[in-house]
Amino acid sequence: MSDIGVSVKKSEDFSEWYTEVIVKSGMADYAPIKGCMIIREHAYAIWEKIQEIINKKIQATGHRNVYFPMFIPEGFLKKEAEHFEGFIPEVAWVTHGGDSPLEEKLAVRPTSETIMYATFAKWIRSWRDLPIKINQWCNIVRWETKATKLFLRTREFLWQEGHTAHTTSEEAEKEVLYILGEYRDLMENYLAIPVLVGVKSDSEKFAGALYTTALEAMMPDGKALQMGTSHNLGQNFAKVFDIKFIGEDEKDHQVWQTSWGVTTRLIGALVMVHGDDKGLVLPPKVAPIQVVIVPIPYKGAEPDAIAAKAKEIAAKLQARDISVVLDDRAEYTPGWKFNQWELKGVPVRIEIGPRDLKQQQITIARRDTGQKIAIKEEETFVVVEKLFEDIQNNLFEKAKAALTERILSVKNYEEFKKIVAEKGGFLKVAWCGSADCETKIKNETGATIRVRPFGTEEPHANCIYCGQKAKEIVFFARSY
Amino acid sequence: MSDIGVSVKKSEDFSEWYTEVIVKSGMADYAPIKGCMIIREHAYAIWEKIQEIINKKIQATGHRNVYFPMFIPEGFLKKEAEHFEGFIPEVAWVTHGGDSPLEEKLAVRPTSETIMYATFAKWIRSWRDLPIKINQWCNIVRWETKATKLFLRTREFLWQEGHTAHTTSEEAEKEVLYILGEYRDLMENYLAIPVLVGVKSDSEKFAGALYTTALEAMMPDGKALQMGTSHNLGQNFAKVFDIKFIGEDEKDHQVWQTSWGVTTRLIGALVMVHGDDKGLVLPPKVAPIQVVIVPIPYKGAEPDAIAAKAKEIAAKLQARDISVVLDDRAEYTPGWKFNQWELKGVPVRIEIGPRDLKQQQITIARRDTGQKIAIKEEETFVVVEKLFEDIQNNLFEKAKAALTERILSVKNYEEFKKIVAEKGGFLKVAWCGSADCETKIKNETGATIRVRPFGTEEPHANCIYCGQKAKEIVFFARSY
Repeated sequence: MSDIGVSVKKSEDFSEWYTEVIVKSGMADYAPIKGCMIIREHAYAIWEKIQEIINKKIQATGHRNVYFPMFIPEGFLKKEAEHFEGFIPEVAWVTHGGDSPLEEKLAVRPTSETIMYATFAKWIRSWRDLPIKINQWCNIVRWETKATKLFLRTREFLWQEGHTAHTTSEEAEKEVLYILGEYRDLMENYLAIPVLVGVKSDSEKFAGALYTTALEAMMPDGKALQMGTSHNLGQNFAKVFDIKFIGEDEKDHQVWQTSWGVTTRLIGALVMVHGDDKGLVLPPKVAPIQVVIVPIPYKGAEPDAIAAKAKEIAAKLQARDISVVLDDRAEYTPGWKFNQWELKGVPVRIEIGPRDLKQQQITIARRDTGQKIAIKEEETFVVVEKLFEDIQNNLFEKAKAALTERILSVKNYEEFKKIVAEKGGFLKVAWCGSADCETKIKNETGATIRVRPFGTEEPHANCIYCGQKAKEIVFFARSY
Repeated sequence: MSDIGVSVKKSEDFSEWYTEVIVKSGMADYAPIKGCMIIREHAYAIWEKIQEIINKKIQATGHRNVYFPMFIPEGFLKKEAEHFEGFIPEVAWVTHGGDSPLEEKLAVRPTSETIMYATFAKWIRSWRDLPIKINQWCNIVRWETKATKLFLRTREFLWQEGHTAHTTSEEAEKEVLYILGEYRDLMENYLAIPVLVGVKSDSEKFAGALYTTALEAMMPDGKALQMGTSHNLGQNFAKVFDIKFIGEDEKDHQVWQTSWGVTTRLIGALVMVHGDDKGLVLPPKVAPIQVVIVPIPYKGAEPDAIAAKAKEIAAKLQARDISVVLDDRAEYTPGWKFNQWELKGVPVRIEIGPRDLKQQQITIARRDTGQKIAIKEEETFVVVEKLFEDIQNNLFEKAKAALTERILSVKNYEEFKKIVAEKGGFLKVAWCGSADCETKIKNETGATIRVRPFGTEEPHANCIYCGQKAKEIVFFARSY
C-alpha cells in the first residue's frame, strides 16, 4: 500500500478496496480489540450529519430524544420469548461490578425494547399519556462471531432507535410507514442511495415484531444491504410488559407499538455505492468538507497574492454556510493534496494559480466526474451551489441506474441459482408464500427474501421453487 | 405527593426536593435496574444544548469528534499503574459473549485514555501528525456502591471526553488552560453557575495525570460540586504506550498529552442552583422550551380569535429562532398549565385572554421572579429577547451572590470544623502543602481541597491544621 491513494481497483478486489478506502481516508480504523472499530473524524462527521437530518425530521413530528440505561437484566430480555431467542446468542454479559459478582447478569443492550417498555408500563396511565414518541442515539453491542467488516459488521456500533406507543393499531401502522418514508428520503435525497422498500417475510422480521418494513440497497458486488427497518410491534410487548391505558371509553386497553432504527452501517453503504478507484465520493449534502481550496504557488509568482485570494474565497463560501478547507500547507505539493482530498471524497476542489489570479478567475474541479473548468471569480458561489446540486443528482442517478440494472425478473429456478452465484443482484420472483420454499432457497443459494414490495403487482408465474400457485412477487438477494 | 407541583420546600428537605423536581418535571426517572437512571426528554434536550455549545467551541479550534470502542481489555487498563489503581474498584466487567467465556475480560470504559492512546501510538509517526485533538460523546460506567443520586451519582452516565497529543509541554499546558476557560464560559455564561477554578491537590488529581485543573460550584446545601476537569497528563501515558514522534530535529520524542471532560451532572447542578419551591428555573440560553403560550378562553369570549392570536404570536417567535410551546390543550385549565410549565422551568410565559385581545396586548410572566406585566402585542419579540437577557443575568447574579456568601476565610481549625459541620461552603484557608495535613482534615471533617486557586495571593497565616508555615491558600469543602 502506498502512503496515499488506493492500491487496488474497485472492480478488481472490491473487499480490499473497501477497507483500504475507509482506513486511508481517515474514516475508521481497526480497534486494538477484536471485532471492534474506531470511527474516526471523517466518518463521525457524516454520522453527525445523519443525526441532524433525522433529528429535524422526527422532532418536527413530536418525537423527543432520551437516554435509557445500557444494561438490561437477563429477566427483562427473557420476557418476550421470540425476542429473547432472537438476541440471546449475540449478547455480551456483564457479570461483575468491581470485584463482586452481580446477583443477576446484565446484557449490554442489543436493542432497548425490553428496558424501555418495562418503564412505559409505569409512565402510561390514561389515553392522555399517549402517544409516547421517543428516540435515542446510542451504542449497541452484538457479539458477532464472523469476521469484522468496518461499518457493516462490528461487535459495537452506533444507531438511533425510535420507540412509540399508541392508542390504536391504525396510529401505530401510520407511524411505521411515516418513518419508512422519512428513512427513504434520507437515503435517496441525502445519501443519494436508491432503495427498495417493503415488508420482510416472517422468517426475516425483527424478533418480537408483528411485521417489519425495511429499506434495501444494492451494493456494486451484487449483494443487498439492509439500510434501515421500521417495525410494527403490535401488542406483543404490551402484553408481556402489561402496558395498559384507560381509554376515553374508561376501559382498559393495551397500547400498540412501533420501533425503528438506522445504524452507522449507512456510512459503509455510502463508501460502497459512490466510491471509485481514487477513493471516497461523497454527496454534497452529507460531505463534512464540501469544498477544498488549493493555492498553486509558483516561485516568483505572487505567492502572497494567491494566498490572500484563497483566503478571501474561503471566507466568502464559509459565510454562505459552505464547509470549506483551505489547504495552504507548505510541506505538501499541490499534486499530493489533490490526491488526498480526492481520497477523502470532497465534492468540489478550487484551484488558484498565478494565471487564475491575473485573469480574475478560479479553476474548479468536481470529484464525481473529474471535470475541470475555469470560471470568473465573482461567479464562485453560484457555480459551487449549482455543482452541489449536479453532483448530488448525478450520484443518485448513477446509483439508480446501477440498481435498475441489478433487478432481474427470473422465472426459472435454474436461472435463479446461476444468477445468484455469478452476479448477484435483486431477483424478482413469484413466491407461493411458504416458509418452506423460502428456507430451501436460502439453504441452496444463500439468497433470502429482502422485501415483499408494497403494491398490487400480480404474480404472472408460479412459485419459483415449488411451481405451485404464487401468492406474490418478492425480491431475493444475497446480502451483507 | 400531589400529581403536579412539588410537595416539599427547597429550604426544608433539599434532597427530597431535588429528586421530586427532577422526576415530576420529566427530566429523569429511576431505571428498573439498580444504580441507573433514565434521562428523559426535558433533560436530554438540555444535554443537547450543552453538546452544541461545546462542539462549536472545540470545533472552531480544530478538535474533531470521533468514537472509540466501549470495551477495554484488562491488560490496557493495567499499563499505567496509578490509572489502573484509581479505576479498578469501579469497573464493570464483561466476561461472556453469547455462551462463551472471553479469553480476556473487558472493562466497560470508565474513561478512554488507555484504548485511545494505544491507538495514538499507531497513528503518530512524525511531528506532521501532531497535534491530535479529538473528542467523543459517549456513555461511561463506574460501578458506584453508594446510593444513587439522579444526575450526580449513577452507575452509567453521559459525558464528553477530549484527548489531545502535542509536540511540546507548553502546547499541552496551553490546551489544558484553553479548555478550562471554555468550560468556565459554558458554566457561567450559559448555565449561569459561577465557579471557582484552580488546580487539584495531588491526592485529588486524576489517576495518571501530572496535574488536574478543575471547576467547582457551590450547591445551596453547602456542598461543593465538581463541574468539570481538564488534565495535563504530561508524558505519563506516552511512556507506557510508547507514543513517539520524529521531531523537526529528526530525533525521537514522546508526546505531551491532555484530557478533559464534563458530564450530565451539569444538569444536576442546574436544578440545585436555580430551582425553587415551584420547580425548575432554567436559564434561557439552555432552556429546551423558552416560551410557553397559554390562551385563556372564557365562555362566549371569542375563543377562536384568542386561539388564532396565540398561534400567530407563536409563529412569529419561532420565526426568530425562539423555542415556543403553544399549550392549547382543552383538557387542562390555565391554572394547571401554569403550574406545569413553572415546574418545568420555562423562562417566559405569555397569556392571552379576552381583555388582552381587545386591547391588542399580551400578558407576560417571568419564571425567575414571578413578575407579570402587560405589553403591547407588537413589542412581544423585543420584550421577550430583553427578558431572556435579564433572566439569564439575574440567575447568574443570584448564584454569584450565594457563592460569595458561601466563601469564608477561616484561620482557626476549631472554627473550620464548626463551619464544615454546621453550614458548609468553601473554606478559604492557609495550607502547608503536606498531604498529611490534608488527609487528617479529610478524615476529621469530611472536607477536601476542592481547588488550589490560580494567582499569587500570599498566605498571611500559618497552616490551618499543623500551624507550620503555610505555602498557599486553598479552598476546602465537603462535596458531592
